[in-house]
Amino acid sequence: MKVKLQQVSPAQIEARSMEIISQELGERHFAPLEEQVIKRVIHTTADFDYADSLTFSPGAVQQGIRLLRQGVTIVTDTRMAQAGINKPAAERFGCRVLCFMGDEDVAAEAKARGCTRAAAAMEKAARLPGPVLFAVGNAPTALVRLYELASEELLIPAMVIGVPVGFVNVVEAKELLCTLPVPQIVARGRKGGSNVAAAIVNAMLYEAGGRD
Amino acid sequence: MKVKLQQVSPAQIEARSMEIISQELGERHFAPLEEQVIKRVIHTTADFDYADSLTFSPGAVQQGIRLLRQGVTIVTDTRMAQAGINKPAAERFGCRVLCFMGDEDVAAEAKARGCTRAAAAMEKAARLPGPVLFAVGNAPTALVRLYELASEELLIPAMVIGVPVGFVNVVEAKELLCTLPVPQIVARGRKGGSNVAAAIVNAMLYEAGGRD
Repeated sequence: MKVKLQQVSPAQIEARSMEIISQELGERHFAPLEEQVIKRVIHTTADFDYADSLTFSPGAVQQGIRLLRQGVTIVTDTRMAQAGINKPAAERFGCRVLCFMGDEDVAAEAKARGCTRAAAAMEKAARLPGPVLFAVGNAPTALVRLYELASEELLIPAMVIGVPVGFVNVVEAKELLCTLPVPQIVARGRKGGSNVAAAIVNAMLYEAGGRD
Repeated sequence: MKVKLQQVSPAQIEARSMEIISQELGERHFAPLEEQVIKRVIHTTADFDYADSLTFSPGAVQQGIRLLRQGVTIVTDTRMAQAGINKPAAERFGCRVLCFMGDEDVAAEAKARGCTRAAAAMEKAARLPGPVLFAVGNAPTALVRLYELASEELLIPAMVIGVPVGFVNVVEAKELLCTLPVPQIVARGRKGGSNVAAAIVNAMLYEAGGRD
């Protein structure tokens, strides 16, 4: 049996996918840069719910693009999100992409203090020099710890992407983040994930000019 | 402002999440092992559509568990899916978790032949000794190439997890896979992803006894 699927390049497939997403979004109006983020998340998930749930602080995407062009350090809460971020695009701007979840000192700290590794990983990231963009796709406790550190003025995140997924404490942790006066992109509700966190970073990297 | 979120361990959060998922699935009936896979995918995505779209060949989960216990090699089509698979659980059974997408020989082969890197990566995996479980969460061309290799009897996949996400060729590639007489778990329709592929492998690893 001969396979009859259309032979097209990955770039053509992506362009056609974005056309289909635009068609299905129909007459809905978004700010242009926010639309790019929303469409890339839908491209990653095939889930149009994100057109409603993604929430942007004023000018968040512009600020993200500016930070990336300046070589901001990107910290994720999972190795999956770290793996999903386009490294050549990040490296073009000198952005490091770090994840401390597997670090032995983080595991030891979490065990000693009775907190999650995600919370301990955020504290380690808070000690990094220079501005940090946090991309949280998994652990609500990471968002809560970022909120606490910022409230106590121990950290001013350059930006937070708050898109953990789940059924316990996730909705609440995102709503808490929304009260924080820092640039942020949040997927309200239960949905999100490491893939969504990576897609949002990639959308901003591409808008910044990180991809040919 | 004091944070009021419930303090619970990751294990407690997961158990409570699974309870909520069971409640919301209500009276729906699934085969017990398939239910574990479905619930873990919903846990990963917060998307109940997977209760309808996940399709299992007869005995697929049992076969997956048996293969994992025998140390099957797991090959993914993205580094994200590779990163998302629980390594201590896989290593408990001696399962390697490989991804060839970033390999220079795969890139060179794809360029020379005008195929996708995903297709070339599947060909490289087809030359591995011993049984291989393919976990495809991104590239429909990977599924098509697996189908072609199996049709030409150049490869007998031990099992295929076919859950790429997308808008072009994705639905068709999954339907093609469904015609192949190999153990398989497929997310029909557009939805899927690297996170879904990893979640399915992890669900089977945990059912196999790979997690304490």
